[in-house]
Amino acid sequence: MRADARDNRARIMTAADEVFGQSPSASTDDVAKLAGVGIATVFRHFPTKTDLLEAVLTLRLERLRDRAIELADSNFPGEAFFGFFTQVVSESASKLAIAEALTAAGSAAGADAKKAGGGLRDAFDTLLKRAQEDGVVRRDAGLAAVYALLIGASRGATAVGLEPEVRDRMLGLIFDGLRPRP
Amino acid sequence: MRADARDNRARIMTAADEVFGQSPSASTDDVAKLAGVGIATVFRHFPTKTDLLEAVLTLRLERLRDRAIELADSNFPGEAFFGFFTQVVSESASKLAIAEALTAAGSAAGADAKKAGGGLRDAFDTLLKRAQEDGVVRRDAGLAAVYALLIGASRGATAVGLEPEVRDRMLGLIFDGLRPRP
Repeated sequence: MRADARDNRARIMTAADEVFGQSPSASTDDVAKLAGVGIATVFRHFPTKTDLLEAVLTLRLERLRDRAIELADSNFPGEAFFGFFTQVVSESASKLAIAEALTAAGSAAGADAKKAGGGLRDAFDTLLKRAQEDGVVRRDAGLAAVYALLIGASRGATAVGLEPEVRDRMLGLIFDGLRPRP
Repeated sequence: MRADARDNRARIMTAADEVFGQSPSASTDDVAKLAGVGIATVFRHFPTKTDLLEAVLTLRLERLRDRAIELADSNFPGEAFFGFFTQVVSESASKLAIAEALTAAGSAAGADAKKAGGGLRDAFDTLLKRAQEDGVVRRDAGLAAVYALLIGASRGATAVGLEPEVRDRMLGLIFDGLRPRP
């Protein structure tokens, strides 16, 4: 891909992330406008709206995965784990909007998004294990149950449209349940 | 309404609850077949699929609300609260399927479902307060945060299609966070 084509692609992805993150029913035309490119350019890179949504969702998941991998090297495993958990839940509204737009477009998440989602889960597992070894998360909390909590907190916060204050209190209750019994 | 019309209506609601709870994309025709009535009878009671979905969702919410009101008289406020929380999360898959079918049918929950939802939240608040007075749930856990946890756990369990075993471990973590600090 030539440099200007790469630039356009990146600009379209950034615009799509913002547009669809705010409103799942937005159109590809809205994306082209915000990106400052013609609609034909968008379709050259992403033949259908589903292709574009899929690329944006994958990018979101990959970014979260990369952030988790980065945090796994932290000297403060408790802060890394609880901080990452908080970040995922806080960002979930716009991420879920994109996932819902994909469902509304009649498509399930494709292979790329699934792979990125699997990578995110693996990276989260590492954060969990390190926090458990450090004694800040109880050792009997398994990945499956803790990951279900993460997804649940994300979806709950989004569904109810929680105020940040209430969301943080909810996270406080969840985190207390994850700490070792005194 | 004549007795046989009431019977038909009840039979259609029971069938719709089962059919749509399993598959949001099921048709009104599937409901008529299971109910053992003609499609014209279904449409006489519920002019559109949306009307039927709305009635079934409202019935679900009302049943949960009535169960919470009943449990509020229990002599064991802790068991009543945690038991009800577990029941809501366990039943969420089919209830959410109905809510999603309603969204897919292009409608938000209408006035009846909203009123039933509000009644459920009020009844849950009573269960929470009684458990707090009894010392089995921490007093600093407010309704908004705990209700967000309930919705989140329900949506998380449904989204991931959790095994009952993992779901129960997730609930165990949530409940530990809700108990008073030792």
